Amino acid sequence: MTTGGPEADRAGEPDLTGVPAAALPTPALLLDPDVASRNISQMAAAFGPLPARLRPHVKAHKCAELARLQLESGAAGLTCATVAEVAAFARHCGAASRGATALLLANQVASVANLRVLAQAAAAAPVTLAVESPEQAALASLAATEAGTELGVLIEVDVGAGRGGLRDLAQLAPLAAAVARSPGLRLEGLMGYEGHATSERSRARRRELVAGALAVLHAAAAELRRAGHEPRVVSAGGTGTFDLTGADPLVTEIQAGSYVLMDVFHQETSPQFGVAVTVAATVLGRHGALIVLDAGRKALGGDLRPPRIAGLPRAELQFLNEEHCGFTVPGSAPRAGDQVRLICGYAPTAVNLYPWYHVVRDGIVTGCWPVIGRHGER
Amino acid sequence: MTTGGPEADRAGEPDLTGVPAAALPTPALLLDPDVASRNISQMAAAFGPLPARLRPHVKAHKCAELARLQLESGAAGLTCATVAEVAAFARHCGAASRGATALLLANQVASVANLRVLAQAAAAAPVTLAVESPEQAALASLAATEAGTELGVLIEVDVGAGRGGLRDLAQLAPLAAAVARSPGLRLEGLMGYEGHATSERSRARRRELVAGALAVLHAAAAELRRAGHEPRVVSAGGTGTFDLTGADPLVTEIQAGSYVLMDVFHQETSPQFGVAVTVAATVLGRHGALIVLDAGRKALGGDLRPPRIAGLPRAELQFLNEEHCGFTVPGSAPRAGDQVRLICGYAPTAVNLYPWYHVVRDGIVTGCWPVIGRHGER
Repeated sequence: MTTGGPEADRAGEPDLTGVPAAALPTPALLLDPDVASRNISQMAAAFGPLPARLRPHVKAHKCAELARLQLESGAAGLTCATVAEVAAFARHCGAASRGATALLLANQVASVANLRVLAQAAAAAPVTLAVESPEQAALASLAATEAGTELGVLIEVDVGAGRGGLRDLAQLAPLAAAVARSPGLRLEGLMGYEGHATSERSRARRRELVAGALAVLHAAAAELRRAGHEPRVVSAGGTGTFDLTGADPLVTEIQAGSYVLMDVFHQETSPQFGVAVTVAATVLGRHGALIVLDAGRKALGGDLRPPRIAGLPRAELQFLNEEHCGFTVPGSAPRAGDQVRLICGYAPTAVNLYPWYHVVRDGIVTGCWPVIGRHGER
Repeated sequence: MTTGGPEADRAGEPDLTGVPAAALPTPALLLDPDVASRNISQMAAAFGPLPARLRPHVKAHKCAELARLQLESGAAGLTCATVAEVAAFARHCGAASRGATALLLANQVASVANLRVLAQAAAAAPVTLAVESPEQAALASLAATEAGTELGVLIEVDVGAGRGGLRDLAQLAPLAAAVARSPGLRLEGLMGYEGHATSERSRARRRELVAGALAVLHAAAAELRRAGHEPRVVSAGGTGTFDLTGADPLVTEIQAGSYVLMDVFHQETSPQFGVAVTVAATVLGRHGALIVLDAGRKALGGDLRPPRIAGLPRAELQFLNEEHCGFTVPGSAPRAGDQVRLICGYAPTAVNLYPWYHVVRDGIVTGCWPVIGRHGER
């Protein structure tokens, strides 16, 4: 990964301004910027009364333009999922206003090559990462000192999701000590992402799981304080739990991201946000009640939830192949040649399949916003 | 989609020649060119005694270098799944030796914009597409005449997969007549892809389903001949059925593609081919028997079959998150910081997530081969 500057990423941007969305080759990724802006304002307003601040997760949209809108609306900085995202967003948003764009990599890193990319990105914007072991801390320290920079560290605690993070809080004090004495590292606090809670459909059940996650975070914070370290940053929360987790005064920042774009999965927990991203597809043909579309798993992703057709709530997915999907639709429309808009089952993996959003207002393409920071991209 | 020439696609290629694969940032897409070449030779040899020829499906690898190796080994041309693939492969392989690179788009198209891309590509190499209705034929005819070119047409018949294609063979003669009299179209024959058969684990069951599919194709061919059109091309078959479908003298060409790279899904039906593509990932940490890796659905895809760890047959997938997966592994290795290689559950969707293959020989990167023709790419 070399640095190329924002211009390098835009060099190949297709000039489709003024083209009707209905005249785009399909499948195509479409963004409604007004719905996205409304979601951003609505979320910013919801954070008004909360003690926590929003550090929105860019993994959901991978788009510098959307990240800038979030920062302008008061976001505390950005959260990333991968070193490729950190590198891309440091380049595109690192110089943004008032140092607000500090980048949190809300994941651990254990590859020397990845840590080098991260330390290089830290030259453009302050970077913090999650750590769960002395081995990870040692590797991060080496990369930071080698690059002559500093990396912030949040100690990751498993709050019930069962993925990464310390399971045994007795290991917290020794790990904090190891981080604190490591050159190039700056111990900032704790992270505990309640991924198992954010996706629960029942708000009561989400509340229960969040309470359990917060109990672990409070215990971890007490442990850290006993070891002589004040957790200045405590990061947690997603779109489905932001107002529950963000209401606890211990939590200083929330990682919600998917509220900007929305999809079938996130509509279950967060119907107050509008769907800003869709995939345009063309009906290839009709066989009785079955319509076959030219968008499949390579155009929509295919995980977590089945896609839906916007405006056709009675359409039911019958299959999702590599380059096709099929829906049964009552009535005789749509027909071969018609364009439909699909709501993604899970937008973050769908967006990840495209190099551009076509920004569409009143049916006309008004711009192309690059998708950045995908795996393997420089 | 504008044409840029092969050089344009390579301009941003990272120069990683000489870097050990173990020092690449992860996740990374790795290609073993020797295994891929062996698979290509082995498949070419298997076609020796068959009446059908191989027109390999590039959707599996999306790689001009691999397509050229296939053409050099005697492939009849290339099969594509999307207009983006046709545009990219026309540009990269259109001028290849002896006109052998005619491109079959083994799918229907019903969008005017997509048909324009296709007609434009036909200037670089002969292009044929599948058609199932007079509406599709009319749209294709318009695009071809508008571009001053000609498109070949295969009438698609549903041989049991239940996706696209004529269900009622009584519609075949009128459709053939419509195609034959449409300016800019050239009726070439029939297509009937037995997608429902290729994935059956049992060879006996595959044989049964192929027999059923071939019966439909024979009936369709008879219908076409009665209408006065000799099917010069009859296209069918995949990696799991190539030798069954390709043994019928009616079938002139086979669309198999996944044999080049292989994955967990295709190993079930076609274990004679070697695994040429893997995803390198780093172990982030270990929690008892559970190891957590820095590769998830955005790095591996996540459909059809779970991924496996190469060389660790007893490792069992526990979860596949957006950017992580977890395996239980007996013993104490691998550990945090170790790199492992993952065999994709389904390679075509995994490859589609990356801009490059890192070509690796004896543990050293010897080149980067672009992945081309992804959705939205020009």
